Amino acid sequence: MQLLKDKIRADARIIENRIIKVDNFLNHQLDIRLFNEIGKEFKRRFSDKEVTKIVTIETSGIAIASIAAQYFNYIPVVFAKKHAGINMNQDVYEAKVYSYTKDQEYSIKISREFLTPKDKVLIIDDFLASGSALLGLISLLSQSKAEIAGAGIVIEKTFQEGRKRVEETGVQLESLAIIDSIKDGQVIFK
Amino acid sequence: MQLLKDKIRADARIIENRIIKVDNFLNHQLDIRLFNEIGKEFKRRFSDKEVTKIVTIETSGIAIASIAAQYFNYIPVVFAKKHAGINMNQDVYEAKVYSYTKDQEYSIKISREFLTPKDKVLIIDDFLASGSALLGLISLLSQSKAEIAGAGIVIEKTFQEGRKRVEETGVQLESLAIIDSIKDGQVIFK
Repeated sequence: MQLLKDKIRADARIIENRIIKVDNFLNHQLDIRLFNEIGKEFKRRFSDKEVTKIVTIETSGIAIASIAAQYFNYIPVVFAKKHAGINMNQDVYEAKVYSYTKDQEYSIKISREFLTPKDKVLIIDDFLASGSALLGLISLLSQSKAEIAGAGIVIEKTFQEGRKRVEETGVQLESLAIIDSIKDGQVIFK
Repeated sequence: MQLLKDKIRADARIIENRIIKVDNFLNHQLDIRLFNEIGKEFKRRFSDKEVTKIVTIETSGIAIASIAAQYFNYIPVVFAKKHAGINMNQDVYEAKVYSYTKDQEYSIKISREFLTPKDKVLIIDDFLASGSALLGLISLLSQSKAEIAGAGIVIEKTFQEGRKRVEETGVQLESLAIIDSIKDGQVIFK
């Protein structure tokens, strides 16, 4: 997706030739116009799939998934919770995820009532790197017996092992910008 | 907002005549069509205000704020972080918030670069009860010297002290559904 690649080239900040910081448009300050273009592109990539629900994970996936849902006939979005409040239903699907950016393992949860075998789910998230979060979501969905229509990712870092791990599950994976490497503070797209 | 009140009457679950659980359409599973109507209504309520940015707080405010931003000419959304990753800028505005639902105090943070004295900010959040989260956001915005155009809340519980505390700051407060009390498991709107 050219618009997204241009945005990354112009506005992403590279730290230690390893971290791609996009908090000025993707995960702290949110570029809502860009998110609409991202939503349209996800619809284009999965136009042959029947999708009844979008599933994402807090925090950064929520805005992207919610805007994208408008292009899938305003279907509901369900987000997996990392930080469940005391009011959360205890009847949940649960999976373990390891976060590299926070260097800790945590549980993600979705209330069972919001995922059923009748759901055809598109997973949407902002980043794919190690694949840990995405595999956690795939695990939740498998537990619920919902059908997985595919996974849409905004930015993929191919130099980590995420794609391989996700493709082994058989889930169709579409990433809008794929970063092959980072060299001298510059992003090299696939 | 009649549509929202109808939705609350039909789908909210009342626990112990005290907690209004709306995780089936507002803060776990998200009703994107309803969020669009909510966004339009916020625009109507603040139509006389110049707004250049929407500020909210993770997690539940993000989707509502992002959909609403579309009705404010696609202005950027910035969300205050409760759970900052190691990649977060250390140069932040910070405030303390006490969460009743999680029974703990926590810090909320926004990177200084995303709030400037030139910004005219509309605050959007899902709930107003004690007012602690909203007062935290008002504190962050005051630190940045951004102008506060107002605060838009989806569901207000007037039987807690939030409104009084917010009105004392002089910020225009607009709540789309105001719940006066809960009686025999039924919501009584103002």
